[in-house]
Amino acid sequence: MDETYENIIEHMRALLAGGTDEALIEFATTLHPADIVDLLEELDDAERSAFFHVIPADVAADIVQELEPADQAELIRLMGAARSSEILKEMDSDDAADLIAELPEAKAETLLDLMNSHGQDVRELLQYDEHSSGGIMATEYVSIQSDWTVEQTLAELRHVAPEAETVYYIYVLDDDEHLVGVLSLRDLVVADLSTRIDAIMNTNVLSVPVEADQEDVAQLFKKYRFLALPVVDKEQRLTGIITADDILDVFEEEATEDMQKIAGTMPLERPYFSTSIKELWGSRIVWLLVLFIAESFTGGIMRQFSDAMQSVIELTFFIPLLIDCGGNAGSQASTVVIRGLAVRDIKLRDVWTVMARELVVGLGLGVVMAGVGFFRAWRVGGSSDIGIIVCLAVLAIVVLSTVIGALLPIIATALKVDPAVMSAPLITTIVDAFGLLIYFSIAKSVLQL
Amino acid sequence: MDETYENIIEHMRALLAGGTDEALIEFATTLHPADIVDLLEELDDAERSAFFHVIPADVAADIVQELEPADQAELIRLMGAARSSEILKEMDSDDAADLIAELPEAKAETLLDLMNSHGQDVRELLQYDEHSSGGIMATEYVSIQSDWTVEQTLAELRHVAPEAETVYYIYVLDDDEHLVGVLSLRDLVVADLSTRIDAIMNTNVLSVPVEADQEDVAQLFKKYRFLALPVVDKEQRLTGIITADDILDVFEEEATEDMQKIAGTMPLERPYFSTSIKELWGSRIVWLLVLFIAESFTGGIMRQFSDAMQSVIELTFFIPLLIDCGGNAGSQASTVVIRGLAVRDIKLRDVWTVMARELVVGLGLGVVMAGVGFFRAWRVGGSSDIGIIVCLAVLAIVVLSTVIGALLPIIATALKVDPAVMSAPLITTIVDAFGLLIYFSIAKSVLQL
Repeated sequence: MDETYENIIEHMRALLAGGTDEALIEFATTLHPADIVDLLEELDDAERSAFFHVIPADVAADIVQELEPADQAELIRLMGAARSSEILKEMDSDDAADLIAELPEAKAETLLDLMNSHGQDVRELLQYDEHSSGGIMATEYVSIQSDWTVEQTLAELRHVAPEAETVYYIYVLDDDEHLVGVLSLRDLVVADLSTRIDAIMNTNVLSVPVEADQEDVAQLFKKYRFLALPVVDKEQRLTGIITADDILDVFEEEATEDMQKIAGTMPLERPYFSTSIKELWGSRIVWLLVLFIAESFTGGIMRQFSDAMQSVIELTFFIPLLIDCGGNAGSQASTVVIRGLAVRDIKLRDVWTVMARELVVGLGLGVVMAGVGFFRAWRVGGSSDIGIIVCLAVLAIVVLSTVIGALLPIIATALKVDPAVMSAPLITTIVDAFGLLIYFSIAKSVLQL
Repeated sequence: MDETYENIIEHMRALLAGGTDEALIEFATTLHPADIVDLLEELDDAERSAFFHVIPADVAADIVQELEPADQAELIRLMGAARSSEILKEMDSDDAADLIAELPEAKAETLLDLMNSHGQDVRELLQYDEHSSGGIMATEYVSIQSDWTVEQTLAELRHVAPEAETVYYIYVLDDDEHLVGVLSLRDLVVADLSTRIDAIMNTNVLSVPVEADQEDVAQLFKKYRFLALPVVDKEQRLTGIITADDILDVFEEEATEDMQKIAGTMPLERPYFSTSIKELWGSRIVWLLVLFIAESFTGGIMRQFSDAMQSVIELTFFIPLLIDCGGNAGSQASTVVIRGLAVRDIKLRDVWTVMARELVVGLGLGVVMAGVGFFRAWRVGGSSDIGIIVCLAVLAIVVLSTVIGALLPIIATALKVDPAVMSAPLITTIVDAFGLLIYFSIAKSVLQL
């Protein structure tokens, strides 16, 4: 922590302890809300509560929006329902809904009642699945009528700008709230004041349904580089907007989930430190157990070959090596393909091209590894026969693992299952069994056991 | 492919074969550039070349910007230098620089010369590291002087809007191009026309240096929810801007790189199908070999215990199970911690909290796995002694792997090494060796070998 930062915290503490309200408000409004969040971490509960009671509700709302869900819930408890609802009313509807969704039912109901008409908006948002467009949209958009002029629209903007989530797109609605056009603020400022909106609006509006998956919406933002996207209901009426800053969160969230799945844990709902130890345990134990039980069949395979191992004990020396080698090659291929599918580089129809490429890559990897394997095994195992067996097994295992690793995520996609479920540990477990069968079959035939 | 889509392609083909230039241009301008990119995939080289010769250079530029790097290079080859440079001049400088960076040196020089003053801008951008602010910024920003009025600014906007990367932030410079303030278009439209800029501009401007790492810049966008961020040189002169849409690419790119590293492959520079088979092979072989050689030390460990295995061959049956179990627990912990570090949920100072949490989680996982392991091993191994050995080994291995998996990425961060290098396969290899030592030590003491 540097000196300036400590000075700022000291200054804030002094203001809370003995400064005027005006000085504290001045302090709170000159800093960015995201920076105040960092400062709040250094305060105790009483100081934090005092801070949120002094500053205006709209300034408080901007700060609360930046807090982690667990910290938001804690703050609500600290401030009490009356003050909390005042602040919630000033928050963007999407952020308010996310916060309310984290609270116990009774507390949520109390707050929603206190929020009056804002509470009604939030109640509507809470109906949607949190991973859908409806779950990430806000209802604070700017809408106008097509027969307005540019001048009227600018006047409206001056009026609504402080509340709106974005003013950079202005949506044109007909009398029944159907979305009929869109206009960027850029279009607006370059137009003459007397121009009618329907002369300059873009009628070719792309929108997404409220129930669209947030991952698909994120891909639209990426493809078309939007700053915002309107959300419509079944009757094509405008119900909300999604802004690019929400999509940054979606990108990060989806990547995190995929990484966790690839590593064989169930995705965590929240940041690491907001996840309890019990939840961390729960996210890992299921896959560990499933894989443990699946892997325990390798015990049966090993038992079948116990005579071979007993007569040539050197065969056992290479089991960890072969098992890991297959697992590594398989998870390299599966991770690259899973990510390729997620960012839409690889599509279902590419299955044969991917297979052909991975077969060649697998052969290339296998040949090199087999060469190295031959010499290592000859030295450790003490005979060229062992060298040959390990060499052939490594080649077969690397090729097979690479192809299986690439194929399974594509098959999962074809079956409408999330390809990230084809985790590295799962691929490893599958190729282990094949690997052991291949290894011992080669050993028996070379050593004529 | 649905019917409408096929119809559109047919329509485009017909226009290219026998339509007027006007009809083709009309067609190209009504579709979104990103959609035209999809259509171009269906055309052959001659059709593609004809298309880019007919449509206006600025429309072509918007389309070329959306192409994958490999397709851009192919198109440049197809169109020839003269037409290519016309289109490059119309592209945003950041996109033009990315394209030029993909070309062979001689070709790049020819094009840059043909681009005149635009070429000079691009040459400057090419000096920066592609993963730095300079590597992702564009030079097309809107800048004004602090003594202008709102009215003058709006007039300037009308003039420069078509060229600018974004008009949503307007940067205020002094006579020496130092960045002294910023103004959002939102601020501008709600202000009176006669207001002076210095009365409404925000003088507390956050900017990033040209050499800042793009991942740090992305975290700033996430924290402060910016639409754009100015980039300054050492003398605090404005040199470019980074926009939120570029940051979406950074987020995706960084997540992809981390995933690939976690899976033990070197990050691919380009999308899957733009990566040659040789590059795919190269990205995987290094880690496979390093891990193979590291893992081959397990052969030595196994050899030390060959007497034990020879007298109780059942001990070998559980080696794959134990090895994978440790690898799985270790990669679960390491992936969660690596991602937590990347998204700044976990910071270096949290090391002890993380260790304590993971120790408890590891114990919780280990106890359950040990219980299951006891019964599986008793059944497959045929004696309760084997059950006890496997049970104790599983407990120790799971706890150790979880703690090592969580600790190594944090140590890497402390040593300023990318934590994602602590890949799942590397953790697996490390815990394998410990796991075998633990297993055989327990076995020898229980069986009194």
